[in-house]
Amino acid sequence: MTDMDDQESVKGNDPEKVVISAALTGALTTRDQCEHIPYTPEEIAEDAAAAREAGASVAHIHARTPDGSPTFETETYEEIREAVRERTDIVVNFSTGAVGVPVEKRVAYVEETAPEMAALNMGSMNYAKYSESREEFVFDMVFENSFSEIREFVTAMNGAGVKPELECFDTGHIGNARPLVEHGDLEPPLQFSLVMGVLGGIPATVENLAHQVRQLPDDATWQVIGISRDQWPLCAAALSMGGNIRVGLEDNFYLPDGEMATNAELVEQAADLVRTVGRTPATPDEAREILSID
Amino acid sequence: MTDMDDQESVKGNDPEKVVISAALTGALTTRDQCEHIPYTPEEIAEDAAAAREAGASVAHIHARTPDGSPTFETETYEEIREAVRERTDIVVNFSTGAVGVPVEKRVAYVEETAPEMAALNMGSMNYAKYSESREEFVFDMVFENSFSEIREFVTAMNGAGVKPELECFDTGHIGNARPLVEHGDLEPPLQFSLVMGVLGGIPATVENLAHQVRQLPDDATWQVIGISRDQWPLCAAALSMGGNIRVGLEDNFYLPDGEMATNAELVEQAADLVRTVGRTPATPDEAREILSID
Amino acid sequence: MTDMDDQESVKGNDPEKVVISAALTGALTTRDQCEHIPYTPEEIAEDAAAAREAGASVAHIHARTPDGSPTFETETYEEIREAVRERTDIVVNFSTGAVGVPVEKRVAYVEETAPEMAALNMGSMNYAKYSESREEFVFDMVFENSFSEIREFVTAMNGAGVKPELECFDTGHIGNARPLVEHGDLEPPLQFSLVMGVLGGIPATVENLAHQVRQLPDDATWQVIGISRDQWPLCAAALSMGGNIRVGLEDNFYLPDGEMATNAELVEQAADLVRTVGRTPATPDEAREILSID
Amino acid sequence: MTDMDDQESVKGNDPEKVVISAALTGALTTRDQCEHIPYTPEEIAEDAAAAREAGASVAHIHARTPDGSPTFETETYEEIREAVRERTDIVVNFSTGAVGVPVEKRVAYVEETAPEMAALNMGSMNYAKYSESREEFVFDMVFENSFSEIREFVTAMNGAGVKPELECFDTGHIGNARPLVEHGDLEPPLQFSLVMGVLGGIPATVENLAHQVRQLPDDATWQVIGISRDQWPLCAAALSMGGNIRVGLEDNFYLPDGEMATNAELVEQAADLVRTVGRTPATPDEAREILSID
Ligand SMILES: [Zn+2]
Ligand SMILES: [Zn+2]
Ligand SMILES: [Zn+2]
Ligand SMILES: [Zn+2]
Repeated sequence: MTDMDDQESVKGNDPEKVVISAALTGALTTRDQCEHIPYTPEEIAEDAAAAREAGASVAHIHARTPDGSPTFETETYEEIREAVRERTDIVVNFSTGAVGVPVEKRVAYVEETAPEMAALNMGSMNYAKYSESREEFVFDMVFENSFSEIREFVTAMNGAGVKPELECFDTGHIGNARPLVEHGDLEPPLQFSLVMGVLGGIPATVENLAHQVRQLPDDATWQVIGISRDQWPLCAAALSMGGNIRVGLEDNFYLPDGEMATNAELVEQAADLVRTVGRTPATPDEAREILSID
Repeated sequence: MTDMDDQESVKGNDPEKVVISAALTGALTTRDQCEHIPYTPEEIAEDAAAAREAGASVAHIHARTPDGSPTFETETYEEIREAVRERTDIVVNFSTGAVGVPVEKRVAYVEETAPEMAALNMGSMNYAKYSESREEFVFDMVFENSFSEIREFVTAMNGAGVKPELECFDTGHIGNARPLVEHGDLEPPLQFSLVMGVLGGIPATVENLAHQVRQLPDDATWQVIGISRDQWPLCAAALSMGGNIRVGLEDNFYLPDGEMATNAELVEQAADLVRTVGRTPATPDEAREILSID
Repeated sequence: MTDMDDQESVKGNDPEKVVISAALTGALTTRDQCEHIPYTPEEIAEDAAAAREAGASVAHIHARTPDGSPTFETETYEEIREAVRERTDIVVNFSTGAVGVPVEKRVAYVEETAPEMAALNMGSMNYAKYSESREEFVFDMVFENSFSEIREFVTAMNGAGVKPELECFDTGHIGNARPLVEHGDLEPPLQFSLVMGVLGGIPATVENLAHQVRQLPDDATWQVIGISRDQWPLCAAALSMGGNIRVGLEDNFYLPDGEMATNAELVEQAADLVRTVGRTPATPDEAREILSID
Repeated sequence: MTDMDDQESVKGNDPEKVVISAALTGALTTRDQCEHIPYTPEEIAEDAAAAREAGASVAHIHARTPDGSPTFETETYEEIREAVRERTDIVVNFSTGAVGVPVEKRVAYVEETAPEMAALNMGSMNYAKYSESREEFVFDMVFENSFSEIREFVTAMNGAGVKPELECFDTGHIGNARPLVEHGDLEPPLQFSLVMGVLGGIPATVENLAHQVRQLPDDATWQVIGISRDQWPLCAAALSMGGNIRVGLEDNFYLPDGEMATNAELVEQAADLVRTVGRTPATPDEAREILSID
């Protein structure tokens, strides 16, 4: 037991075992940008198995059509779940977020496929990108997740036995969990994903990560989700604080040396980093215990 | 010069002089709830003068119709500006925020009446209220302020020589100022209002206030805006950190002892608190200098 | 219940009731500097009673000879205890710190007089003062409190049923409590005094106060001790965070308006500030309950 | 340029280039504990050269006699300086701290050998170790560094053109720099070493590291010094915040996997970690520029 094992920021995590999540696909990027992105259920399942081999214990997945467009069909999610299950014991986590897709459609596949976990976006915000070199906004959306929508998702997840992963892009999003716990919608211990570096949400700094972690209940588990080049230093900081981490092509294509990578290579690099700070990657079953998934 | 005068959190504020803003009206509450809320331009101007007498140097104003409904008519704002100017030298600051009112309408009265300052909402968020006693959500809105809307307001304010007051309800909202500065829309030194305690935004704690202040550029000025009963302790903390403060019937009806008050009484209490921490209320001209209003 | 009542920084304190300590005498200042400083047991007891009347629930006391020099005689401390007890029910708290006085002497009067509480200095540090106007160090000492000395005091206090008040001048001093708890010397819940603004210790800023509070165990009670002119803003910040506060001629002679004051006047001002943030001064019996004094 | 490059915590450091210091010897440990510790000037110089090869740009050195006892003789330090210079261009940094060795002796060798840098301990504190397994204090000292002693060192360093490395074991130690700058003793930009994890000083947590960094002037450079097993996660966190790092047998014998290592192997591991967060080790000349050593 050292000071670092014992720091407040560990919260409900395991000071030694680290849950590495692999965000295999995402919804926005394409093979034109990175040829390694898996599209079909088979491709996704192969990447899940390889990520598991490299040290990941959770696979976070968005469904795609064979041509790479995002899809929200129950059938595709069902195929993905089956294909992953055939190959590996990794925890299956489905995305639920989208701009411009009706809530019912996104609730439906969660209810019907009942993955072990599903992402739950905990508030509204601008979701934008500004290019310093081009001196213009590349995109500029409002990412809407009202309390009533959040509660629709929670109700569905509770009914289907799905563990919600609370995606928080800003400090208020963490605070939004409180009335939902008081109202009996969410049941502790909660699992938080602290997303950093999206323009419109909290900027990616270690100071801000420490601040987000301070907001969490003592028994909460948490991981950091860093976007693009800032991912590696954010992972290093989170691991030092006792956090879990997420890597994968949804968030970032590159290894620290600037090489474009596969999902498995990204997980391998993450697992190395885990060991460098004196911790070890959790197995899927250890992850289930840490995250209170039955 | 003491440690407290010299702390980082003072930022661009004056360690001695405090800008007290009086938020006289708001848009959501009515005389059924608090009989002291001013509605007409004359009533508003009388309250502005009394607030100035009690120690306020800025009047933040939402227009109302004579029956108390919110209005966004240029004519009404023009009447308010005139009525205030006849009575007192207080800095005039007009609101621009609303849910469900077209941007153009809200831009129009700012451009045409050219107040010295106007509020600028810096991001999107849920805007909700949960009642612990009733165990339900009292209201649940998405407060939308996309970057393109924010930029429409900024362009209009820049054209009309209006100083924007950047209203930030969460950490990401502060970060949203950065691309707008880089793009040349906003010009430092910036004036920030740190709004705390709205469900959907950052919770009202001193820890969170300190965090928000850490995000600000070194030359920025700032005030805290606390909602309802938490207003007084938030003001006490902000004053100790070198901040400016806002009080008034828009934010809170009550004195610390639970008595319902007028705008002038709330400002008087605030001025007392300012003196208790060893500082003094700024005059409107001192406020103009502190806030870089020409 | 509001956000502020519920913030983490409240720790083991009562969100509503505030323990005001009056540090009546100190050891270093004299009546040449402030004529209101009490010297004799009778004078001290009169001030204790007046402070109690004004809202204090704890009296922190250093003994003096009739000519004002510090003394560490059991007999004098005994007389003080008696004189206070005859007049008022305030909690009696004796100092134990000194530079250059043998530990045994300071342990002796604590053991023999068995006050309800006694101060316990939790670490070593420089204790100095620099004058900006004279551009020189006014004094420069090393304040030594090794673990073995701390443990001598703790053993004596435990034996005599005295509640230790852990005086922490820096972050490491708070950390020093940990091995003493593990070793069974100190028994939770602990009472911390966060002293700020002594050169050599942690500087007096709200940021630093928030940091010190974050270090504390969840069940710990705490008060802030601010030195000289920074006392009032530090009290305001601490009260907003759910803290208890200390005022009195040991720490500061002046009201916020710069007037030199008596102990009772300082407590009165503190009690006003308590009410301004919506809290109320605790009675001595309420203080005993909050601080776990049997 | 990313968010992480731009975070406040970078302060005066280079967001890309990292100064790795190698603390080759220390004074307290012996070859009985770790056979790789260099004792003689030749051995130390060989380790300095190997550390340089592995990515270090500064060598922090305590002199030893051939049997491993600490020594403070000018002659030995002179031999070390010469032996290092013959082999490599690494920045030479000599220790000055000790318990129970007269200041004059420690000042003398710094003045006479004029290394490029020398450590300067910035305050007093307990310096202790508690064993949880044995349930006792292993050692318990008071590490005394009064302002007058600190100023003796600074005067000598200024006279000899030696850059002081301000070793801060607690928050107050950082604050102690302020009167020394105002008095003209220390000249910015300052170089801070944030030592964490010594019992008596600030505990080793990322939260505390972030806090220490917040205290620093904007133009200050800084490195973290973590003790024993906590070193690797502290380095990971510091690198993510834009900090420099120190490793070496003075602080820690072990690689993250628990293997006992040489100085060069520790530096190699550190350099790997530097690259994993997307930064690169600075050369000695780059380090001189970053640290303002002429
Ligand atoms: Zn996703
Ligand atoms: Zn308003
Ligand atoms: Zn005292
Ligand atoms: Zn050393």
